[in-house]
Amino acid sequence: MSDFFASRWVERPAFVLDCAAMPAGFRLGGIPAGVKSVDSQDVDLGLVVSDVPGTVSAARFCDSGVLAAPVVVTRERCDLHGLRAVVANSGNANAATGEGGIEQAVRMQEAAAAALGLHPREVAVASTGVIGVPLPGERIAAAVPRLAAALSPEGAEGFAYAIRTTDVLDKHVSLEVTLPSGTVRLAAQCKGAGMISPRFATMLCFVQTDADLGAQTADLLLGVSVKRSFDRISVDGQLSTNDTVILMASGASGVRVEPETDDELRFGEALDALLRQLALRIVADGEGARRVGRVHVRGGGEASVSRVARAVANSPLVKAALFGGDANWGRIAQAIGAALPGSAPLAFEIAIEGITVCRAGAGVAFDADALARAVSGNEVLYEIDLPGEGAETELFFSDLSYDYVKINAEYTT
Amino acid sequence: MSDFFASRWVERPAFVLDCAAMPAGFRLGGIPAGVKSVDSQDVDLGLVVSDVPGTVSAARFCDSGVLAAPVVVTRERCDLHGLRAVVANSGNANAATGEGGIEQAVRMQEAAAAALGLHPREVAVASTGVIGVPLPGERIAAAVPRLAAALSPEGAEGFAYAIRTTDVLDKHVSLEVTLPSGTVRLAAQCKGAGMISPRFATMLCFVQTDADLGAQTADLLLGVSVKRSFDRISVDGQLSTNDTVILMASGASGVRVEPETDDELRFGEALDALLRQLALRIVADGEGARRVGRVHVRGGGEASVSRVARAVANSPLVKAALFGGDANWGRIAQAIGAALPGSAPLAFEIAIEGITVCRAGAGVAFDADALARAVSGNEVLYEIDLPGEGAETELFFSDLSYDYVKINAEYTT
Repeated sequence: MSDFFASRWVERPAFVLDCAAMPAGFRLGGIPAGVKSVDSQDVDLGLVVSDVPGTVSAARFCDSGVLAAPVVVTRERCDLHGLRAVVANSGNANAATGEGGIEQAVRMQEAAAAALGLHPREVAVASTGVIGVPLPGERIAAAVPRLAAALSPEGAEGFAYAIRTTDVLDKHVSLEVTLPSGTVRLAAQCKGAGMISPRFATMLCFVQTDADLGAQTADLLLGVSVKRSFDRISVDGQLSTNDTVILMASGASGVRVEPETDDELRFGEALDALLRQLALRIVADGEGARRVGRVHVRGGGEASVSRVARAVANSPLVKAALFGGDANWGRIAQAIGAALPGSAPLAFEIAIEGITVCRAGAGVAFDADALARAVSGNEVLYEIDLPGEGAETELFFSDLSYDYVKINAEYTT
Repeated sequence: MSDFFASRWVERPAFVLDCAAMPAGFRLGGIPAGVKSVDSQDVDLGLVVSDVPGTVSAARFCDSGVLAAPVVVTRERCDLHGLRAVVANSGNANAATGEGGIEQAVRMQEAAAAALGLHPREVAVASTGVIGVPLPGERIAAAVPRLAAALSPEGAEGFAYAIRTTDVLDKHVSLEVTLPSGTVRLAAQCKGAGMISPRFATMLCFVQTDADLGAQTADLLLGVSVKRSFDRISVDGQLSTNDTVILMASGASGVRVEPETDDELRFGEALDALLRQLALRIVADGEGARRVGRVHVRGGGEASVSRVARAVANSPLVKAALFGGDANWGRIAQAIGAALPGSAPLAFEIAIEGITVCRAGAGVAFDADALARAVSGNEVLYEIDLPGEGAETELFFSDLSYDYVKINAEYTT
């Protein structure tokens, strides 16, 4: 994936290079386990393991009121700072499946732990796929030993394949990061064609590094990076039941990343660029998506800028205009007004690709031809200024296309 | 419009009949005024007037932070309990147009007042159409005398035509309502192809009756009915800048509707059925819509049931499934979870067209063929039960179709 840092909105740090090899200490793989149906040949079960005792980890999950069983099991039964492995499947979300679903997730976790010689609390479970259908835990458990035997340091592509559903774009990469104290590797496998997919897919992201991180450092860096990446994207404002992000640091490079050092700064910068680019790739791979929008909102009040950014990014009207290459800024004005009821008259400003179209809440003259050209590219920037100052936020979002409707309307189970 | 009460979700009260004639005291009309362009022949300017001094009125508006100039002018410069006329245009929303927009709205208001011999504060102004484009107030003011001269009691269709944008279904009707104290007429002209349209259209509804209502009664009945009708629909969760509902009661029937009488009860019931059916017609006419969904949520907490209903009704995933005739209830579970973050595990129940698919938060066995048939009709009922009791709400919503995308992506200005 030579063009991994493809978006103009994520700069590749100068000390980060693509790398063919995985971080030291990890093995991965994926096989067909018949999750969707007994005779399915799709690669739908994946495993990643760190062979290094003392591996440090950090994790983040979605906050839905309807949490999938694997999220519940991982959150409640695992040592989230000491994860050694992740077992993950596509084709079934194991969500809204009740106590039986919990039992199947535990069965999957225990099978992986047994095959790897680990304690179950060291093994995270993740699932993505259709909601409300019982997970065939027996078939999965039966397939795990075969999968465990096939793991290898070159297995990232197989693992990445095992967790994808409607994804079209590749979302796995390995990077070499030069820190002051030495060189480490940083890899990730991610899936998500938006927050949703026909099979109710999910954002899953598994990150490995051979840097030597403390548990607090791992947690801090992952938390900050997730907030600036996966928390800042929307395909359609839909929250999954299964979202999971897990970072594992084997320490096998021997390069220690101490808190508040240039090592930490650089490592954090690399992780941030990696997750932001993966997040942008999810948006670009949003179901049926043609263009990616970025809305940047400045003004007074964290709540206001956040509400406006969400309202613009999730407006089907704005998204359809983005798809059509239509610079209809009135739709953005509408979304702003809807996000801040009762605030009229509101002196907001809108610029699209640097062209100011609205000032003090009223339209201004602009070069319509230049604007039409500006919104015909792959990425479109919307800047909104609200009264006051001190707060700002941004969101990346995909457009709304015929194919989005097709993918989501023509799927039937 | 013989099948006006077409939805199974609105019952025609036994004392309500269709009626060819308008309520006594009103004249209406619509003409082409060149709002969209000088040479446009579209009927785009409408006027309705009560010829009866002492006519009583009530009004409701949207609560956007970006209010259109006609909404500001009507709210701030009119006697909302003593409106005698409404002048309305399509083709231009006169929103995000600044001080100039206010001036043009006032100009439109004053031209109508002069032509009708009324005070400007007796004349409401309403607009619908594209946002951020200056309203050609001069052309409108020049057309008003011609329009005023053409008004007639038979002009409802012309007026209804003048306020429509992408509407396909007719949304005007006149009814005869038999009250204990006598018979009155009740008419309405409404527009809206959802809360949005390619030209940023709006929900406008103008209601006339020749019943003799006090100002408080008019306000109370309109307020209650709007909350149960236009406040309970969503095409795509987008709030317009221009929404306006105005009720005018001429009293010309001589039938007085006193507070807390059977007259008031019946009149309120008729108004409620009228506005609910119009609201359902807006949803059915939602851009590109094929099916109408009704989500009914019961449980503990007004805020919870409301958030869940909105999340389901505005989920593009649920809407695309409704369009596709797909009974994918997992998407409803997802929307419930997203609406109530942090509440897991949540013991919710889902029934579609009376078929229970999920109980205590987990899927149950159901007759898939029967469910597939049930979701293939024009109207689909989703019932959701949350833990607790005491609160309930409902929302009507349209599906998400190819034509929705087409209408909203291929429109360019």
